[in-house]
Amino acid sequence: MQWVKVVGLGVGAAALLGLGIILGHFAIPKGAEQPASSTSDPQDLDLEILKTVMEQLDASRIQENLRELARQPHLASSPRDEALVQLLLQRWRDQVSGLDSARTVEYEVLLSFPSPERPNLVEVVGPDGAVRHSYLPKEENVTGEQEGPDVVQPYAAYAPPGTPQGFLVYANHGTEDDFKYLQDQGINLQGTIALTRYGVAGRGAKAVNAARHGVAGVLVYTDPGDINDGRSLPNETFPYSWGLPPSGVERGSYHEYFGDPVTPYLPAHPSSFRLNWDNASGFPPIPAQPISFQHAEDLLCNLQGPRAPESWQGALSCEYQLGPGFKQGGKFTEDSQVKVSVHNLLVLRNSSNVLGIIRGAVEPDRYVVYGNHRDSWVHGAVDPSSGTAVLLEISRVLGTLLKKGTWRPRRSIMFASWGAEEFGLIGSTEFTEEFFSKLQERTVAYINVDISVFANATLRGQGTPPVQNVIFSAAKEISSPGPSGLTIYDNWIRYINRSSPVYGVIPSIGTLGAGSDYAPFVHFLGISSMDLAYTYDRSKTSARIYPTYHTAFDTLEYVEKFVDPDFSSHQAVARVAGSVLLRLSDSFFLPLKVSDYSETLQSFLQAAQQDLSALLEQHSISLGPLVTAVEKFEAAATGLGQRISDLQKGSPDPLQVRMVNDQLMLLERAFLNPRAFPEERYYSHVLWAPRTGSVATFPGLANACSRANNTNLGSEEWAEVHRQLSIVVAALEGAADTLRPVDDL
Amino acid sequence: MQWVKVVGLGVGAAALLGLGIILGHFAIPKGAEQPASSTSDPQDLDLEILKTVMEQLDASRIQENLRELARQPHLASSPRDEALVQLLLQRWRDQVSGLDSARTVEYEVLLSFPSPERPNLVEVVGPDGAVRHSYLPKEENVTGEQEGPDVVQPYAAYAPPGTPQGFLVYANHGTEDDFKYLQDQGINLQGTIALTRYGVAGRGAKAVNAARHGVAGVLVYTDPGDINDGRSLPNETFPYSWGLPPSGVERGSYHEYFGDPVTPYLPAHPSSFRLNWDNASGFPPIPAQPISFQHAEDLLCNLQGPRAPESWQGALSCEYQLGPGFKQGGKFTEDSQVKVSVHNLLVLRNSSNVLGIIRGAVEPDRYVVYGNHRDSWVHGAVDPSSGTAVLLEISRVLGTLLKKGTWRPRRSIMFASWGAEEFGLIGSTEFTEEFFSKLQERTVAYINVDISVFANATLRGQGTPPVQNVIFSAAKEISSPGPSGLTIYDNWIRYINRSSPVYGVIPSIGTLGAGSDYAPFVHFLGISSMDLAYTYDRSKTSARIYPTYHTAFDTLEYVEKFVDPDFSSHQAVARVAGSVLLRLSDSFFLPLKVSDYSETLQSFLQAAQQDLSALLEQHSISLGPLVTAVEKFEAAATGLGQRISDLQKGSPDPLQVRMVNDQLMLLERAFLNPRAFPEERYYSHVLWAPRTGSVATFPGLANACSRANNTNLGSEEWAEVHRQLSIVVAALEGAADTLRPVDDL
Repeated sequence: MQWVKVVGLGVGAAALLGLGIILGHFAIPKGAEQPASSTSDPQDLDLEILKTVMEQLDASRIQENLRELARQPHLASSPRDEALVQLLLQRWRDQVSGLDSARTVEYEVLLSFPSPERPNLVEVVGPDGAVRHSYLPKEENVTGEQEGPDVVQPYAAYAPPGTPQGFLVYANHGTEDDFKYLQDQGINLQGTIALTRYGVAGRGAKAVNAARHGVAGVLVYTDPGDINDGRSLPNETFPYSWGLPPSGVERGSYHEYFGDPVTPYLPAHPSSFRLNWDNASGFPPIPAQPISFQHAEDLLCNLQGPRAPESWQGALSCEYQLGPGFKQGGKFTEDSQVKVSVHNLLVLRNSSNVLGIIRGAVEPDRYVVYGNHRDSWVHGAVDPSSGTAVLLEISRVLGTLLKKGTWRPRRSIMFASWGAEEFGLIGSTEFTEEFFSKLQERTVAYINVDISVFANATLRGQGTPPVQNVIFSAAKEISSPGPSGLTIYDNWIRYINRSSPVYGVIPSIGTLGAGSDYAPFVHFLGISSMDLAYTYDRSKTSARIYPTYHTAFDTLEYVEKFVDPDFSSHQAVARVAGSVLLRLSDSFFLPLKVSDYSETLQSFLQAAQQDLSALLEQHSISLGPLVTAVEKFEAAATGLGQRISDLQKGSPDPLQVRMVNDQLMLLERAFLNPRAFPEERYYSHVLWAPRTGSVATFPGLANACSRANNTNLGSEEWAEVHRQLSIVVAALEGAADTLRPVDDL
Repeated sequence: MQWVKVVGLGVGAAALLGLGIILGHFAIPKGAEQPASSTSDPQDLDLEILKTVMEQLDASRIQENLRELARQPHLASSPRDEALVQLLLQRWRDQVSGLDSARTVEYEVLLSFPSPERPNLVEVVGPDGAVRHSYLPKEENVTGEQEGPDVVQPYAAYAPPGTPQGFLVYANHGTEDDFKYLQDQGINLQGTIALTRYGVAGRGAKAVNAARHGVAGVLVYTDPGDINDGRSLPNETFPYSWGLPPSGVERGSYHEYFGDPVTPYLPAHPSSFRLNWDNASGFPPIPAQPISFQHAEDLLCNLQGPRAPESWQGALSCEYQLGPGFKQGGKFTEDSQVKVSVHNLLVLRNSSNVLGIIRGAVEPDRYVVYGNHRDSWVHGAVDPSSGTAVLLEISRVLGTLLKKGTWRPRRSIMFASWGAEEFGLIGSTEFTEEFFSKLQERTVAYINVDISVFANATLRGQGTPPVQNVIFSAAKEISSPGPSGLTIYDNWIRYINRSSPVYGVIPSIGTLGAGSDYAPFVHFLGISSMDLAYTYDRSKTSARIYPTYHTAFDTLEYVEKFVDPDFSSHQAVARVAGSVLLRLSDSFFLPLKVSDYSETLQSFLQAAQQDLSALLEQHSISLGPLVTAVEKFEAAATGLGQRISDLQKGSPDPLQVRMVNDQLMLLERAFLNPRAFPEERYYSHVLWAPRTGSVATFPGLANACSRANNTNLGSEEWAEVHRQLSIVVAALEGAADTLRPVDDL
């Protein structure tokens, strides 16, 4: 590691905008307990502190954290989950390395578990109802950690109980198109059991699509072609490689929405109004059960019927056929059906978030929130404990500086360990519901590090455009793990890049869906958010995700053998996330570059112009106002950037900086419209709501056009297209107004 | 006028909180064009400037303004309305007394006018269809101003065209209960024409209620008992008194919602999406037409049928009977029916708001908005020109100080002259839709002065609780018109008072409905708002409103003879509004007292406990969480008040003050929940949404209980009661969080 040299080089090259150099840095209050009395002195990011933090983030301590965190399964609301709550509180209340304060925030949330008495089962039964073969979805005890009372057996959380039985069909990924294809082949889906594979469609969507076509029950397996680069033999998989063993099964939530299912938009306090469990929306309409590829092979390779299309074929040792039912001469008689027995139970459980607080010295009412979930499906060494291990190491290093009186950030920092994420981002969502006003008024940015290391090839960043700048700044100053001598940024650009019309070739920042706890922050609150991790070399694997994801094989041993043996990737993520956190909380000017939204807007606009404008014109809808709105946004963003540059050249007054920072902070809020997508729970961000339409443009416009296509001139659907266009235009104009000079009323 | 003495006394006694005295005041930037370069010096409200402004607000200039404004009818979008736009621009761009800048913001909005070719008519027709009597709703030309091409004939804006004909019934105020009463009397309402009187139910509601009972058309008149204290003879009314002449007819909007009817939640730009006019919601479902009491008397005093109940009787010269149809031996034959011919047209018209801006010296990104509408029904000397005359005088005085370089406020001031208010607050609503983000982020308070002088007895203030403090502070330092020698505050308390558990007997501040342009600010944006005016001695008149309201008799002569001959009440309102404006824009600490919300919450809570708790308990809904939430709010508000007091004792840093002021500014936002009342367009404020339930508690709770009453245990309606309770609890907890110390994360 060549830390000093990297910093020396980095400052010259980075997008730090010369902040530290121009403004210098001022005395830092020495007493940790004593609030800063004078707040007028411009205090900026202290490069010495940053360097100290980078040096102190320690790989072996992250490994120690992980050892403790992944020692036992810690399913949401389990005793071990509660024990980890206490561990976090203890760490954050430590006299030497703790924070200013720590507390829990508890909710009573609706979770779903398999019945402890009646295991879920998949059976092959004859016409007489006699069971001919029985499959228990349970993982083989390969390393001694796959068995025990705390290992929850594989299940589809929130799938309803039931025992559907029918002929088996193979339905590929279980998309709407997949089921349509089966119907087009003349296959009667009514009352069938559909075997689907993970990927492409979301978990719950498979069951929703299936039910729409009359299917009675859904099985979901992980194809070795999608997860193991085709390998499927025991000695080709864990513990002999990072591959998923034949008995591995991916657990997961099959609920369509995120947040507690029965308290939408309300914090799930014991006294809160709850929807009736029976008619709460978003649960799978039919029973569903995940199974291993070992079991799937038995079923799939014995199907009769037409050969499945090439794109439906996987890596199991046979040609995939569509069914319905089993073939003659196979393992099962032709008249055999498949029976799926699901005995899942809905239960109200307490789940806690743990919060650790560092009060800001100068602007305590500006919050930088850094979070990850705590709950796992089983041991969860990768998901989420690799992230929690990093979280604890960052908070230890900052807490130590704080307790020593060496440092206190300009703004407040909130560390969060969310509960019940695996059931649908429940802890974080309830938290944003409870503290909606305060968080929306004051949060500068949200940093999420869930799985910190998927693999050890390169950094991966996802986020809204304004955070690109601060991630790049951090990544340019940290050396990447391994012998390359490259910075994390330079290593990153080799793996994941794009050509930007503004910057040339740069690392490509992904967009934020609803895959982790950033979702309520960006979609519901409109807070600039990001997710950071180390990840794969995509030239070496096409695995959909790391192979033991959501299985009982996601253990410390797995991490230490196959994911990140020296924890250097964990350390790299800790450094990037720590640097981003410090920059957001300590920089005089917020390091959010709002003009980076222009690229997104331009690309959305161009897609609309290329792929929609002719169609829109037929319906007398002009994209002209959208073009104008994008231009206004760009001009306003550029103007604000210029004013910040000008201010940086002088010695700006703290109030002037505050005003500019408020504009930067509030930009993302201006993209919210809680009335834009009433049917999409929580999604209010008009740029990042889910896009189902095929055109890569503004989601409301794309989706409305997709629905209106083939409807008549003057249809309600075309009216909705126009409405969605007006909503986006109004949001962009509002965003431009937020960025324009504040006295330009 | 004893200004100096009043100030001397006032400062000692007022709720100024000793701001000026403790902090003193600092040098004010002298160059009007030069922005303040240093913003660190605490600048507070300058009492000398305040005194100067109070002295310079001139009654005779207000009269001159009114003379010009009320010279001709200036119906929304008429040429004279456009001419007044130019007048405002010219005043606000004046080199000597203008503001920093002025501009127009134009919308294309859907208005409704009577047909220029076919006048609306009310006819009495025989069974053969022959017209036996015809009434043209048109006012008598009493003073020479009631006739002319610019006088719009009386009509019900947005009532649909149609020529319904049927037997006449008398339906009192046209409430739901009124129509039910008629049905209970065995009167078949199907196909009837209902004659109703203004008051109690809203204009549009009369038609909605009527249509629900099968009524085919609605007439609305102003009963002399409701408006003239019973007087109805020509020589008892204008121009001989302030009474409404027999031919006077109240015009008005009959649209149920406010804002442009076809662009809800979107600014009405030419390119914006518009609802289909034909199925836009909120228009009266049946034709409606307002008529004079002269015409109403002819119809009503000839009705047959049972005698109307005592509370339905009015001051026309007969006993009111219910109908249906006319009595034997009266003016019309028994078989006569009434035919209402409405030929109103919907038209898209341009309507402008005019904005006048004073840039803030220290916090230009904090806005105080002061507005009134410009459009009138006819000459509109009282409504709205008495307010516009005051607006122009305040802006002249402040503009003069600004141009001289004597003064520039700490925060920015936006003066607004709204268009098309009479058609349903259209200009202001479209403005809040267009600038939603910017206004919500930055607006400190909204001051509305629509009709500035209803009558000259006392000040009247309406607003959300935090503004009580600043209105009182202003009112305590200004002498009231007339010889009493009392301050406006002391005069006010004699007329309109209440006993406050906190303060003892104080003037009573009314709540804000949707009567003027404050509505979108408070209900849609969540901005602390107020409406100020001078008004009646209620011991002297029971008039529903000033008698010539929305008629062609609302003229300068009317004001000069009967409303405020010496314009001293206009001056008094100018001073109060001007003082409030200066305090909001110049005070170091915002003069919003958030703890004054506690009284409202306590009174809502007590009403719920007294009138609903037993019922709620039957449905297992506890008010406990609401009690706790109110307590939390109170503790947080008290705590913030204490911290402000403590800060005022020292020399607080501008950033510290900014943080506290942000809490004060944003409190009202925390009460917004755009998902609370999806069916109530724009209403998001959970404390001030319309309350239809009879219990004077939180509106969502009151309305839900009212609907749930008499439904079964476990009904959807009772679920909604619980949901509404949880919504209020969450809002109060969120508001408490906004007020708690900002580093108490």
